[in-house]
Amino acid sequence: MWRFALLVCLLSSACWAQQPGDFLPAATNVWGADYPSVDRAGRVQFRVKAPAATQVKLNFWSGPKVDMVKQPDGFWTVTTAALVPGFHYYTLIIDGAEVSDTNSQAFFGAGKYASAVEIPEPGTTYYSINDVPHGQVREAWYQSQVTGGWRHALVYLPPNYDAQTKLRYPVLYLQHGGGEDETGWIRQGHANFILDNLIAGRACKPMILVMAYGYARRAGQPLPDLMGKPFGSPEMLRAVQEMASTFEDDVTQALIPYIDSTFRTIPDREHRAMAGLSMGGMQTFQVTLNHLGLFSYIGGFSGAGSFVLGDRRLDPKTDYNGVFADPAVFAQKVHLLWLGVGTQEPERMRTGLQRLHAALDDANIKHVFYESPGTDHEWQTWRRDLKDFVPRLF
Amino acid sequence: MWRFALLVCLLSSACWAQQPGDFLPAATNVWGADYPSVDRAGRVQFRVKAPAATQVKLNFWSGPKVDMVKQPDGFWTVTTAALVPGFHYYTLIIDGAEVSDTNSQAFFGAGKYASAVEIPEPGTTYYSINDVPHGQVREAWYQSQVTGGWRHALVYLPPNYDAQTKLRYPVLYLQHGGGEDETGWIRQGHANFILDNLIAGRACKPMILVMAYGYARRAGQPLPDLMGKPFGSPEMLRAVQEMASTFEDDVTQALIPYIDSTFRTIPDREHRAMAGLSMGGMQTFQVTLNHLGLFSYIGGFSGAGSFVLGDRRLDPKTDYNGVFADPAVFAQKVHLLWLGVGTQEPERMRTGLQRLHAALDDANIKHVFYESPGTDHEWQTWRRDLKDFVPRLF
Repeated sequence: MWRFALLVCLLSSACWAQQPGDFLPAATNVWGADYPSVDRAGRVQFRVKAPAATQVKLNFWSGPKVDMVKQPDGFWTVTTAALVPGFHYYTLIIDGAEVSDTNSQAFFGAGKYASAVEIPEPGTTYYSINDVPHGQVREAWYQSQVTGGWRHALVYLPPNYDAQTKLRYPVLYLQHGGGEDETGWIRQGHANFILDNLIAGRACKPMILVMAYGYARRAGQPLPDLMGKPFGSPEMLRAVQEMASTFEDDVTQALIPYIDSTFRTIPDREHRAMAGLSMGGMQTFQVTLNHLGLFSYIGGFSGAGSFVLGDRRLDPKTDYNGVFADPAVFAQKVHLLWLGVGTQEPERMRTGLQRLHAALDDANIKHVFYESPGTDHEWQTWRRDLKDFVPRLF
Repeated sequence: MWRFALLVCLLSSACWAQQPGDFLPAATNVWGADYPSVDRAGRVQFRVKAPAATQVKLNFWSGPKVDMVKQPDGFWTVTTAALVPGFHYYTLIIDGAEVSDTNSQAFFGAGKYASAVEIPEPGTTYYSINDVPHGQVREAWYQSQVTGGWRHALVYLPPNYDAQTKLRYPVLYLQHGGGEDETGWIRQGHANFILDNLIAGRACKPMILVMAYGYARRAGQPLPDLMGKPFGSPEMLRAVQEMASTFEDDVTQALIPYIDSTFRTIPDREHRAMAGLSMGGMQTFQVTLNHLGLFSYIGGFSGAGSFVLGDRRLDPKTDYNGVFADPAVFAQKVHLLWLGVGTQEPERMRTGLQRLHAALDDANIKHVFYESPGTDHEWQTWRRDLKDFVPRLF
């Protein structure tokens, strides 16, 4: 019966074949896909069907492109060297076409639905689904007068939120990176499982996470036009800052009021935090430091002050309207300023965070500086950041 | 500053160029992708970069493959004939490799993250996000003793669910098709917007939708092995039925108790419905007709009795333990039996539903038979089905 065709097709491919050696299908694969497969050392085998192609490259975003080798059966294969544990985006380049691997689940990054392979970190369970109570992630739509349209956010409510109807919770606003979207912290980052596990272990307070869509154009305006503007030019920076400022208004004027009127939050600055990764970290600095009446905890994960500072050093007396000028005043207002970067991130990223760290030290601004050992500008860094950051809140 | 690179990259491509004629980017594109673009007649222009490819085909799942044409700039292009309104899955075949188009959002279908293009239906807003109160979709994890693991479901809660804490709601269990997953009814089907709009128009009762993952293997068992079994053979059918029966147990023994203990449902058969599309419709027939103590409303969207009947006619006296034997008894138990199929679906699909419809008529079993004009075995049929089905419930 052809009506079973789709189903059968799926089931057939879903009968996991035993891999040679200890290679097992990656957790990021679609159901039933045998490749990519990962061994205990973190090596990955790829296998892609492209019988008429003349060149297929494996394109890990955090490393050089790797040539795949054509096999007599029309499949292209390669086995990588051992990769650092964590979540690695990749695409395939088939005769010049950059495409996703249909063996992988699709994750939104760099403005497209890309492939990824998850390398387990031995002995690590803090971002796994464990046998503990689970919070729920909700999709919420809110209308923004700032952007003049409906906007989508994901909201994590801690376990028992529905049952304990008298309890109110603090809120962490948590932003994705450039090219990603509001789904990143759940699908790539496993932020829900990280919170579930920390809450179950009483390592952090039960809290609400709000993950918003980090792009915004002002109502009735076109997107800031960056085409044809010289890279790094003042015009380009102005356009980037224009979008960041629209996002800032959306968060403070539309999103926070929506969240506070829709969920049982504790709607004051003492119980409101914001953090973000990469672009989201820069947005966090901009939003929180311009609105210290709204936030008292701040986290910059592999991204912090660059929207304002560019590549120069922080001047605590004048930058950010002088909020860093008086350490005692700052410490009274901001209960936590947290910066993090992976030790394997690109030089310029590490330098930027370290420069900010040093400038804050020199200005006697109390803060946490965390370096994730061995990890790049990737999700494993940000999972660790979240695990370190969240227990310090509220 | 390279830190802006990802962001800038996204923004640049996001400045929507004016299309020639009235072609506009499809709603299913990623942010900023100009192609696929759709004109008012429903024609679609595709443009894909594959400079070194020798053959690129556009592969609509509901039609024949179309050759794309290489342009001097290394892009391959094609403009389709007018397509029927609705959501159309497609992939690209680049030198023999079936891949997704990174211009499109990715939607889980046929066991992979595929591309799709949405053709607007002129004047139709019932599945759009409109200026009405919105329910929330939640991601829920439940532990199943049937499958021995955590399972993921999406749950739509109607507008004001959180505010009206005394109200309890009826529940519709709503299943995806073969090769799709629990995200299909929201992302492809827009079931949340359909419900929002019907509820706002007082065309249906506020209700909860539960969208479960439709595949299941029994705890400790391998997936039913279908490899190497002759297509349509008794062994293959047994394997398919084995998975369906595991899913049946999961729904009735794990999912329903979880939903009823987690959400404010009205936990009785009078306030519980089930419907599904294609494979989900077959599952619905199996689950509901084996458990009329749990359900009183039944919907089969382009799929219904085939798990039991195969290609033969219903025998009302014996099939399904004789539930159809006495029309009066059946009508007392089942308040709605609903069947639907698109007029452009494949012959065998239409024949199967019509045969069941005729057999039910002959047996004097009251039911609704709906034919969606002009639509294929695709989501536009199932959106219409849901819009017709839901107002008849509870």
